[in-house]
Amino acid sequence: MEKIEPKIPRGFPEYLPREQIAFNKMLEQIRASFERFGYAPLETSAVEYAEVLLAKGGGETDKQVYRFEKGDKEYCLHFDLTVPLARYVAANYRELAFPFRRYQIQKVWRAENPQLGRFREFYQCDVDLIGSKSIPSDAEMVAVIYETFRALGLPDVTIRISNRKLLAGYLEALGIKESTKVMRLIDKLEKQGPEAVGKLMEQIGLTGDQVQKVLFLAEIQGVSEKVIRDLEQTGTKSAQFAQGLKEIRELAAAILAQGIPAACFKIDLGIARGLDYYTGTVYETYLNKYPEVGSVCSGGRYDNLTGYYLDKELPGVGVSIGLTRLFEILKEKKEIEMPSATPTKVLFASMDEKFLATASAAAARLRGEGVNVEVYPERSGLAEQLKYANKIGIPYVAIIGEDEQKAGKFTLKEMKSGEQKLLSVDEIVREVKGQPTE
Amino acid sequence: MEKIEPKIPRGFPEYLPREQIAFNKMLEQIRASFERFGYAPLETSAVEYAEVLLAKGGGETDKQVYRFEKGDKEYCLHFDLTVPLARYVAANYRELAFPFRRYQIQKVWRAENPQLGRFREFYQCDVDLIGSKSIPSDAEMVAVIYETFRALGLPDVTIRISNRKLLAGYLEALGIKESTKVMRLIDKLEKQGPEAVGKLMEQIGLTGDQVQKVLFLAEIQGVSEKVIRDLEQTGTKSAQFAQGLKEIRELAAAILAQGIPAACFKIDLGIARGLDYYTGTVYETYLNKYPEVGSVCSGGRYDNLTGYYLDKELPGVGVSIGLTRLFEILKEKKEIEMPSATPTKVLFASMDEKFLATASAAAARLRGEGVNVEVYPERSGLAEQLKYANKIGIPYVAIIGEDEQKAGKFTLKEMKSGEQKLLSVDEIVREVKGQPTE
Repeated sequence: MEKIEPKIPRGFPEYLPREQIAFNKMLEQIRASFERFGYAPLETSAVEYAEVLLAKGGGETDKQVYRFEKGDKEYCLHFDLTVPLARYVAANYRELAFPFRRYQIQKVWRAENPQLGRFREFYQCDVDLIGSKSIPSDAEMVAVIYETFRALGLPDVTIRISNRKLLAGYLEALGIKESTKVMRLIDKLEKQGPEAVGKLMEQIGLTGDQVQKVLFLAEIQGVSEKVIRDLEQTGTKSAQFAQGLKEIRELAAAILAQGIPAACFKIDLGIARGLDYYTGTVYETYLNKYPEVGSVCSGGRYDNLTGYYLDKELPGVGVSIGLTRLFEILKEKKEIEMPSATPTKVLFASMDEKFLATASAAAARLRGEGVNVEVYPERSGLAEQLKYANKIGIPYVAIIGEDEQKAGKFTLKEMKSGEQKLLSVDEIVREVKGQPTE
Repeated sequence: MEKIEPKIPRGFPEYLPREQIAFNKMLEQIRASFERFGYAPLETSAVEYAEVLLAKGGGETDKQVYRFEKGDKEYCLHFDLTVPLARYVAANYRELAFPFRRYQIQKVWRAENPQLGRFREFYQCDVDLIGSKSIPSDAEMVAVIYETFRALGLPDVTIRISNRKLLAGYLEALGIKESTKVMRLIDKLEKQGPEAVGKLMEQIGLTGDQVQKVLFLAEIQGVSEKVIRDLEQTGTKSAQFAQGLKEIRELAAAILAQGIPAACFKIDLGIARGLDYYTGTVYETYLNKYPEVGSVCSGGRYDNLTGYYLDKELPGVGVSIGLTRLFEILKEKKEIEMPSATPTKVLFASMDEKFLATASAAAARLRGEGVNVEVYPERSGLAEQLKYANKIGIPYVAIIGEDEQKAGKFTLKEMKSGEQKLLSVDEIVREVKGQPTE
């Protein structure tokens, strides 16, 4: 029979068992951290009606959506978890209790041009607090980000925070109309630098003086007190700006009240988050060791999540971790431990098929004690069985042959040290659970 | 603005938080049980090249596949986890160690006609042992099924087992050529009864005598010794049948060696599993309390998993739980506890905004102790905050007002009993962790 090449499209990542175990561990750490703050799990269907999900229409996103027809309906794969959340909240409004804390860890799909760290199928980990407009909610997001990265073993982060009202009010006071375009250009500052971005600003019609003033604001950053002073000194005449200043002052205090170290966050007016639905606090998170990879967790406050679906204004705030991208970055930086390609702690190896029944019974007893155990199921030499254990990283092998059978015991080999002990099943349980065998 | 109805297509299930928590609990129980037997987690991409995934072509499945084009390529959503596993194993053959134990818990998509218990987007939980052709591997599957349902709180199952070689050998000895078709008809016996199925068998060319003999075999079932005796007494002259008999005898012994209660499984020649890739042992699992819902976990042994992709024969054995369907059945039967719509154990409620900082700090300390905690983030009356806790099922509310602030304590209200205690943060930790406070 002619064989078909078992290939998968680029941008659809798959892992070897060792990597998958490391990936799942991160996923579970994120999940546990989100639940620690009381966020409830939610999962929305991956496939939706195109007309519903693309209600907003237009924009870059639309081109990146995987759509398909089946019967007389057009469907699409969800491209983020925010629009499905809006649709879900609108559909289940009466059943939900607000403030509604939910997290969602799912794959999303985008027909992007795949490149390093950019995927077509990838995990997003979103957390949102809906139905609350208070500053303590904004502060909670900072705690969620900080504690989640700490749980991931990445406590060395800087969470950069701004407030869209500051930037919007400042632009308003300068008489700049193209505020959304300017915000998107500010987002490019880090990659392209002030000179290039300044030119782009002039191209959309800003005067040289306006450009200078916008770049001046975007460079304001640092610890809260200093930034607040700097912002006050701009003397900006705008109610929106004043409101933003009030909010960010309250926010800094509320973050510290939660015990977040001051070194882990800073206010940074260079963070604009040029998506048009953000209306207040915005966040980006950088790994201090690898600032060049950009933000690994971003989000912000929005005034009206369900605007397209529901006649009720639901404010909220949320952030998202692009887990697939983060995992790939950490893998490339050799920051991920991958000790084992299996959850197995003990492999039972038989010198002959006739011992398999004894091995199976012992394995069942160990499982009853909560130990992950497998039995080598094939007739095979001991050397091969040990080689297998070694290849996938099983820490212990329990061997049974004539002598062990007679003694009613097993030879337990610790693979790393090579140390061997003749032990009963009960002793094996204690040994592999790390308790003394005496 | 005109609103868009936030609807989702039928057959794409979504849950309320309370249901999602119960669903995730089942999923985690299955995951832990699979890992207990040493199966490694695996996830394949949901989207594949249509030409690769549909290598086999034809059949019912093809019509049920969601396909779409993007650029010059045709893609599809995976419709099961077995074909992707075959493709994955072929692609990563050199990196994997065999016997390869993997589990895969993912959504799959099928454009079926949605009805009760049949979905278009649903979870499958697959477990396969690849690269082993021994009977102990077949026996392990029975242990995996039994222990997994026990972990789910559903120990009262009957795992029905047969061996395709018995049926195939028997049909061969009777001179029946249409063996695949006959096997598919045998699968219909339970729903349609022997009379209707007998007629269908005659329609595809079996003689009345052949029909009688096939129905006779399909009715053989019960404890192993009896079935083996019955099978021997058929006097079937077929090497394949003899091999099947030998295998099922060994299998029954190997199952018992693992400590599986004899009452939990039976040999049943009425189980044919009419999929053409099964070649040996086949399994179906029934809930004794709800036999009418049919099999909730099925599978079998196959000789050559990767035949379409790889020039190597890889035998294996596996079973699959349709989790979405199982969850819906149990939900309908009121067998699922849904105590809470949140992971939160303690809600901090403030009598006034000015206590929010104190509440936030206390919440952070509780989280440090591993307790899931949320702070009510809005200015709101106590009654409303208690109502919220009650609605989503938060067990404890820690209240702070003037008196508590002065005392450096919180009033902890146990929502079920209504009991209130004035406690310090340390005392709250002990109380909610179920340790005595004295």
